[in-house]
Amino acid sequence: MNAEHYARRRERLRPLLRENGLDALLVSLDANRFYLSGFELHDAQINESCGRLLITADGPDWLCTDPRFEEAARRLWDREHIFIYSGNAAERLREFVKGRFSGAIGYESSCVSMAFYDSFAGGLSLKKADGLVEKLRVIKEPEEIARLERACALNHRLMEWLPQVLYPGRTEAQVAWDIEKFFRENGASELAFPSIVAAGANAAMCHAIPDDTVLHENCPLLVDVGCRVDDYCSDQTRTFWVGDRPADEFLRTRDMVQHAQRVAIDIMRPGMPLADAHNMALAVFERHGVAAAFTHSLGHGIGLQTHEAPAVNHRTDARLEPGMVITVEPGLYFPVWGGVRWEYMVHCTEDGVRVL
Amino acid sequence: MNAEHYARRRERLRPLLRENGLDALLVSLDANRFYLSGFELHDAQINESCGRLLITADGPDWLCTDPRFEEAARRLWDREHIFIYSGNAAERLREFVKGRFSGAIGYESSCVSMAFYDSFAGGLSLKKADGLVEKLRVIKEPEEIARLERACALNHRLMEWLPQVLYPGRTEAQVAWDIEKFFRENGASELAFPSIVAAGANAAMCHAIPDDTVLHENCPLLVDVGCRVDDYCSDQTRTFWVGDRPADEFLRTRDMVQHAQRVAIDIMRPGMPLADAHNMALAVFERHGVAAAFTHSLGHGIGLQTHEAPAVNHRTDARLEPGMVITVEPGLYFPVWGGVRWEYMVHCTEDGVRVL
Repeated sequence: MNAEHYARRRERLRPLLRENGLDALLVSLDANRFYLSGFELHDAQINESCGRLLITADGPDWLCTDPRFEEAARRLWDREHIFIYSGNAAERLREFVKGRFSGAIGYESSCVSMAFYDSFAGGLSLKKADGLVEKLRVIKEPEEIARLERACALNHRLMEWLPQVLYPGRTEAQVAWDIEKFFRENGASELAFPSIVAAGANAAMCHAIPDDTVLHENCPLLVDVGCRVDDYCSDQTRTFWVGDRPADEFLRTRDMVQHAQRVAIDIMRPGMPLADAHNMALAVFERHGVAAAFTHSLGHGIGLQTHEAPAVNHRTDARLEPGMVITVEPGLYFPVWGGVRWEYMVHCTEDGVRVL
Repeated sequence: MNAEHYARRRERLRPLLRENGLDALLVSLDANRFYLSGFELHDAQINESCGRLLITADGPDWLCTDPRFEEAARRLWDREHIFIYSGNAAERLREFVKGRFSGAIGYESSCVSMAFYDSFAGGLSLKKADGLVEKLRVIKEPEEIARLERACALNHRLMEWLPQVLYPGRTEAQVAWDIEKFFRENGASELAFPSIVAAGANAAMCHAIPDDTVLHENCPLLVDVGCRVDDYCSDQTRTFWVGDRPADEFLRTRDMVQHAQRVAIDIMRPGMPLADAHNMALAVFERHGVAAAFTHSLGHGIGLQTHEAPAVNHRTDARLEPGMVITVEPGLYFPVWGGVRWEYMVHCTEDGVRVL
């Protein structure tokens, strides 16, 4: 992606600002900032921003950051439209905005803290404006699809390679490190999210943290891992069996999970309510009397963030649209022995869906 | 750390709740949550919490999370005091709190989003209560000091080992990966923060992201890296010279930076205003006429987070106290050729300071 690419995205955002009666939008979410500018994909800490964009209804747009990032900003932004703040960023931004805009300023309420808001708000006409950038991001451009495919392809290679390092005596943490090395040494810039490698009963924790739990002969092993390639994330889950005598309850559970996944993907087409996909998978589990063991959403959008719009659960009113990429990952969890999850990434095209 | 250890910390927090007129404190910051419970050190994404604690003025305390983390919660928390929510977490928490507490509920305004607040607030008496847990965390317990020392010791080993992989032709990204492998294969669970490996002019960006920039003969290389050992972070910066003919301006700059660092550390003692340390370092740069090239704070507290209280800059009114661990990291940056930063971790004891 080059400067023009980011500029085109900002042009596509301006009509949304005008529709929402905004003079400008303060972009705070790191992935939104990066999507519109190429500036810093990650904030350093939850309470520490690398900078914010001020996208205006009619241009030009401002990149606002602190002196630590000034040189990085200059390398990709018109110097005339960089605003550098020190001290209380929210107060400095308020003064800056106050002098330039008289109309409504939008902000992303789901990632602007109360503390920031209170310092920023005085004398400004602020308006919640969540999801505007996400409205663009949810429909992937062809170049974004290509990058997601590359990330996903590396994840497939990992899953094919992985069984050889899954043998009794190794720990979850060791396997997690093998996975990270494989990703990094084959083209990924980082993990897309902390790897989940959960053996035996740990597999019942759908977000388990790898620890010193040892793989033993004949136990389930849930592996939910993703990598970042060219800035885009992959996310796949497979549940392996260590040893050659898989327990009946494991096989039965895996069959149910894969069946639910197949049913959900089979009905997917452009325009379909995403809640229907979740509910179809859930209905499979209900028929087997195990619905209570399916404790999370069927899936989520994926792109610059591992978890992004659209939501894929029973509450969402979003519909599947061409250009969306979502995960489909039903799972069943039983604290006594473990659990099974199976996850594919699915791309919605003009006439259907395809598994990446 | 075991369950009793976390329970003792919560007991130390209760008087602070009472002093602030709070019936309970909703703990949202991931590091604060972990400090008080051992539950999930990291939230998955900036807009996605793994759960929150509700610490009460008189006990018992509640662990609130969603079904994905229920099993993890049960492994470390009394089941009677786990609250599981689905759907809109803030609304569920509001209903939960409403039935149980009539007095003021504190919340951390610097990490509670406006969206969360608006769903949570209705009918509750909410009160900003930032920094209460941090008041405990800022003074490290002996076990925490021991862990910080272990993380720091591994960082020293890395810096001694590193020069052998710094030769012309290698890229910043390759060196960054060497560093990560070294840390991980020698006891670290992860990086403390994304490594900064910045060659030549890139060293002028104090938060540079390693890229395909190639190390060439006779260039500066700024390396600012840290690891996490037993949950605690290290953070060290050294600026190397690749090749055997260091430029005069590099040597001159390094001397000034190291001098400023020495001056700041030399005056540190319990009770000293931390702003004085920053200003002493700045004064060294002012005498040399290069103060404008020192673009950040002198340092920061470090512990479960890389950046935590106390701040060490010219604005803070915090004083150095026994048990604090801070970084001291002056730097000078010149976009034309690069920059130099030098960083130590410093532990304040009863009668002075020591460099870890």
